[in-house]
Amino acid sequence: MDRQKIQIFDTTLRDGEQVPGCKLNTKEKVDVAKRLEALGVDVIEAGFPISSPGDFESVAAIAAVVKEATVCGLSRAVEKDIITAADSLTGAKRPRIHTGIGTSESHIKYKLQTTPEKIVERAVAAVKLAKSFVEDVEFYAEDAGRTDNAFLAYVCEQAVKAGATVLNIPDTTGYCLPEEYGAKIKYLKENVKGVHNVALSTHCHNDLGMATANSIAGVVNGATQIECTINGIGERAGNTALEEVVMVLRQHPDLLKYTGVDTKQLNDLSRYVSDTMRVPVQPNKAIVGANAFAHSSGIHQDGVIKKRETYEIIDPKDVGVDHSSIVLTARSGRAALAYRMKNIGHELTRDELDVFYAGFLKVADEKKEVKDEDLHQLVESTVKVAV
Amino acid sequence: MDRQKIQIFDTTLRDGEQVPGCKLNTKEKVDVAKRLEALGVDVIEAGFPISSPGDFESVAAIAAVVKEATVCGLSRAVEKDIITAADSLTGAKRPRIHTGIGTSESHIKYKLQTTPEKIVERAVAAVKLAKSFVEDVEFYAEDAGRTDNAFLAYVCEQAVKAGATVLNIPDTTGYCLPEEYGAKIKYLKENVKGVHNVALSTHCHNDLGMATANSIAGVVNGATQIECTINGIGERAGNTALEEVVMVLRQHPDLLKYTGVDTKQLNDLSRYVSDTMRVPVQPNKAIVGANAFAHSSGIHQDGVIKKRETYEIIDPKDVGVDHSSIVLTARSGRAALAYRMKNIGHELTRDELDVFYAGFLKVADEKKEVKDEDLHQLVESTVKVAV
Repeated sequence: MDRQKIQIFDTTLRDGEQVPGCKLNTKEKVDVAKRLEALGVDVIEAGFPISSPGDFESVAAIAAVVKEATVCGLSRAVEKDIITAADSLTGAKRPRIHTGIGTSESHIKYKLQTTPEKIVERAVAAVKLAKSFVEDVEFYAEDAGRTDNAFLAYVCEQAVKAGATVLNIPDTTGYCLPEEYGAKIKYLKENVKGVHNVALSTHCHNDLGMATANSIAGVVNGATQIECTINGIGERAGNTALEEVVMVLRQHPDLLKYTGVDTKQLNDLSRYVSDTMRVPVQPNKAIVGANAFAHSSGIHQDGVIKKRETYEIIDPKDVGVDHSSIVLTARSGRAALAYRMKNIGHELTRDELDVFYAGFLKVADEKKEVKDEDLHQLVESTVKVAV
Repeated sequence: MDRQKIQIFDTTLRDGEQVPGCKLNTKEKVDVAKRLEALGVDVIEAGFPISSPGDFESVAAIAAVVKEATVCGLSRAVEKDIITAADSLTGAKRPRIHTGIGTSESHIKYKLQTTPEKIVERAVAAVKLAKSFVEDVEFYAEDAGRTDNAFLAYVCEQAVKAGATVLNIPDTTGYCLPEEYGAKIKYLKENVKGVHNVALSTHCHNDLGMATANSIAGVVNGATQIECTINGIGERAGNTALEEVVMVLRQHPDLLKYTGVDTKQLNDLSRYVSDTMRVPVQPNKAIVGANAFAHSSGIHQDGVIKKRETYEIIDPKDVGVDHSSIVLTARSGRAALAYRMKNIGHELTRDELDVFYAGFLKVADEKKEVKDEDLHQLVESTVKVAV
């Protein structure tokens, strides 16, 4: 069976930038956009042009330089938002306007203080207005994760009729379980007239730690676009991490999906975004964390030294990391110690290793990590005692 | 229908401690264990006693002070490991020995360099030996995530016959998709004789970002114990985050599961573990990240000011965070600005707000975050111009 291409819609510069303290200037945003294009993403959401003059400028500057990827601007279902988004995208080779409105009971009643009928009217008007400027219009049903499926299907169908080319189904509050989110996408695929002529998109938040699994459940059930950010940054607990969904699809070829992302650039781009946006990545972050390919327990080190695949499902080189690392600590075993000792020029017999290992553990129980210089010192003191 | 209690097995002090640079001394480990017991976890895996004299001491010290929770020590399916684990647990009120062996083709062939038959023999011998010391014996089938289900069921059945009280099914390399992992647990539930007299346990790693979803898929399909760590720390990309699985079960009462964890302590304990073990938590970490309850985009702020539930599924107080925060940036709208201005003593009319908002955006485009002192300054300069 043929594999299906999944579009990667990167929103690092829009949803990712909605993080306290991580504002970028226009030049920095253009640099990130260029790198995203080189990475091979299909769509770059460059900003929310009505939100401030600075953001408008950034979207326009990105639209001017990006050649291959679609450049997208966000808007609410509000006339001036859409007109401003269109203005900011006039220089784009492949412009897309992203517009939409809240569809859940909570959003309709408490945020928008209106009725379901009015929501549909505003959604249709917004899509039509956007369509008068650009061919490619993405409609988002905000808080779709908590929206009744029948009403959601109805709104989506009206948006398709009005000219939407992509339907975005955000789990805005990060509430859904993967099964639930997958079922929602399946329901839309089966109940929205015209859905087969448009793309369904996932947009998952990580409030309960399930954004990646939810996005994958979405594509397994028929979505063909994933919205995500580098390092999973974004509002609150952030968005789906680009590096995670891309690697899930790559490591699970049985899903018959692929993306256009050059995974070898992931590690570098992760660091660049973290540094530029000043949002640290925790060491235990999947794929791009500093420890993602570090082994410190003896059982694991022994396995990895014999064959990397015993404890690693991803070859670190595939995501741009030079090699796995074997870190010596009090949890390390003889295998790792012998391996490191050989690397620094001391081949030990089994008996020598037994004596040396006891000394090593004493040092390791005192220190967090045993470095090569500690080993050299230990060699000297051990030899002295032996003599 | 009655809700089912899910046992929380915390391995912060064992798998979590297997992180480069985060070694704790015995006093620190005892402090963490006391806090875990106060949090309400059911089992504390205190260490891997054979690995070093320091770790042995720590397990013994924890066994001596913990009263309610089960205290567990790890061992390989190796005689001296099991005897050492038993020795370290002699002071425990509720001791458990955790022992096991690799069952995947990769582990049998490349790490252990043996045959499936020998694996079963060693597993049975290990469980029997552990059982001669303690009543409560947990058997782990390492790399179960990549183990053929039929062989896994066979090994598990033999372990139950030998006296295991808990069967741990680790996705050691973090490879599984939730559906796949859930199906594995279901298969064991249906194909292991005697499984109904023992507990099935999940132990998921986060290499592809799906540990939380996998653990939940496990309990939905019949597991009754989740192994996890505070902040999701652990080998490589870490383990399942305790705070995430606990909050998923709490926020999804339809799953009919609950835990004994006092969620109000989660935020404090997360900080304590992060500080003590020196493993930072990224701001966009679910539940316990610094930004998990911070709103900086105008659309979200407007919603949250009207009703918190429009953009938040968890009441921050439930996890020990005082309140959600509204951060003023260039992405903020009039609603958030008016709200903050009122809080600092300036009630603005709609027209005043329009003028003031334009000035605010200029400042915000320059700054990452607009603080109260910036607003006071802006009031002064705006008033001067108006006069």
